[in-house]
Amino acid sequence: MSLSEFELIQKYFTSRATQRNDIVLGVGDDGAIVNVPHDKELVISMDTLISGVHFSMETSPYAIGHKALAVNLSDIAAMGAEPAWFTLALSLPEADETWLEEFSAGVFALADRFNVCLIGGDTTRGPLSVTIQIAGLVPPGSALRRQGAQPKDLIYVTGFLGDAALGLLAIQKKISLPKENYSIVTKRLNQPEPRVKQGLLLRDVASACIDISDGLVADLNHLLEASEMGAKVFVDKLPLSEALRQSNREPSEQIQLALTGGDDYELCFCIAPQQQSAFNEAMETNDCPMTCIGEIQEDRKLNCIYSDGSSFEIQGHGYVHF
Amino acid sequence: MSLSEFELIQKYFTSRATQRNDIVLGVGDDGAIVNVPHDKELVISMDTLISGVHFSMETSPYAIGHKALAVNLSDIAAMGAEPAWFTLALSLPEADETWLEEFSAGVFALADRFNVCLIGGDTTRGPLSVTIQIAGLVPPGSALRRQGAQPKDLIYVTGFLGDAALGLLAIQKKISLPKENYSIVTKRLNQPEPRVKQGLLLRDVASACIDISDGLVADLNHLLEASEMGAKVFVDKLPLSEALRQSNREPSEQIQLALTGGDDYELCFCIAPQQQSAFNEAMETNDCPMTCIGEIQEDRKLNCIYSDGSSFEIQGHGYVHF
Repeated sequence: MSLSEFELIQKYFTSRATQRNDIVLGVGDDGAIVNVPHDKELVISMDTLISGVHFSMETSPYAIGHKALAVNLSDIAAMGAEPAWFTLALSLPEADETWLEEFSAGVFALADRFNVCLIGGDTTRGPLSVTIQIAGLVPPGSALRRQGAQPKDLIYVTGFLGDAALGLLAIQKKISLPKENYSIVTKRLNQPEPRVKQGLLLRDVASACIDISDGLVADLNHLLEASEMGAKVFVDKLPLSEALRQSNREPSEQIQLALTGGDDYELCFCIAPQQQSAFNEAMETNDCPMTCIGEIQEDRKLNCIYSDGSSFEIQGHGYVHF
Repeated sequence: MSLSEFELIQKYFTSRATQRNDIVLGVGDDGAIVNVPHDKELVISMDTLISGVHFSMETSPYAIGHKALAVNLSDIAAMGAEPAWFTLALSLPEADETWLEEFSAGVFALADRFNVCLIGGDTTRGPLSVTIQIAGLVPPGSALRRQGAQPKDLIYVTGFLGDAALGLLAIQKKISLPKENYSIVTKRLNQPEPRVKQGLLLRDVASACIDISDGLVADLNHLLEASEMGAKVFVDKLPLSEALRQSNREPSEQIQLALTGGDDYELCFCIAPQQQSAFNEAMETNDCPMTCIGEIQEDRKLNCIYSDGSSFEIQGHGYVHF
């Protein structure tokens, strides 16, 4: 190859890093130096994408770059924080410049949109994997958490559920979709939109929040466990996209995908009855669908039922690594 | 296997995390929440170790855990910062409990010694690799950097150079060592001691600093490039351990290892003439050897010479990834 590690890092990462005025020193030393405002707490999260586990060999480098940052932004969104900086550990079998160019384009297009800045990282030869660590800012005590849900709180989700899982089925040729819908759902899988704006709107009104990366049931269960609560979820209220509704899957299979499909990166959150009007007000500037899908209950079970009270039987419980 | 990802994380990581009172929320939510003191800047660094690249299949899980954190602590040390928190992304082919137990013991033994606390991360199925992102604290404007060296500054290194490279040769059976020395140098390779205390002592006296991970020549060159300077290094002044001196390598080969061998994780730093007495004073509480090996010069070359002025020819220039 023609460029050394240092030249590659310079070309595709250091020189492309956007600037924020809270960065004292960015990429290029043993560490970066940043300023955390006096009136903010720091929120930190880290996620890894591995070839063959989180994306297939066919996934475009642009999408891998986008998704690696998006899943981290989604964690910051779920905490109600404002994204600030990230570090990137990239392991690559070889220094393929075309790959690096597209990958970094995917990373930085999203980074620029959310004003989050690359401040460091590590590039290594090895099996393809991307680890990003992200930091965000939040006023003291106001971060959203998984704990905090109370009985009678309404449960909402952003966007649509099950599209990413449908996209995976389509890519695996287990289902056939019209071209336009194929494009919609594979983009939902490969280039999820992190709900950062919605997380910020929810910060002062939601009682608990989590992002749905492993499927609604799995992640809602994490929220319920942290809150020491149970919930009723009305399966006929789950927001399903036109693409999912138009697929040739049975309605119960569509619900199944919405309940257990991974990679949606929507937010699932709870609104206390007394916060309902504040929530409605906050939603006036919101441009993402928010759907009430159920209610928190003291009984520590997760009941997935139809609105008529009949129960829905779940097959599987979302992604389990290992 | 018997435990889920969540149970494994709980058993080996969440429950073992030590506490610091600046942690608002540790492992277990979508993100951690920490408080950065008003009078501190945040230093952030990230390093990856990959099986087959940074350590061999024979390396003990304990050593891998130790080293993954040590190389990050070394970056924090090079910045003159005080380590605070870290996140850990672990990719493992399978959830081997014995492996996880030993690995986490290696991580936490070192973490406890340096009062640095695990606050989050990600565990994934995949080829064995460990990425750690570390954050440290430093008074505003006082972090050490690669830039800042001036002509006539003296160049120092901590500890001994070349031991880790000798350890690698010994493990690869390219060299035979007495049992005791084998143990010393392989420990230097697999369980390097991060020079955090020395970084803190140097914070107000060094003009520039870097950690030696890729070999003295490669890393000193980074410092010189950032400082826009050159240097003379006296190869007969390089600190060589008894183990290296006692090896059956020719003196010039010993120097070669000290100049270009990677993985030493010592600090290389510069002291301006007017800071020499402050440096000597700071060193009174130091228990690690510090050796003057040369001098910064305006002429932007790195000259490796004997004290009599004759030049030493370097073979190779340290690690280059890709």
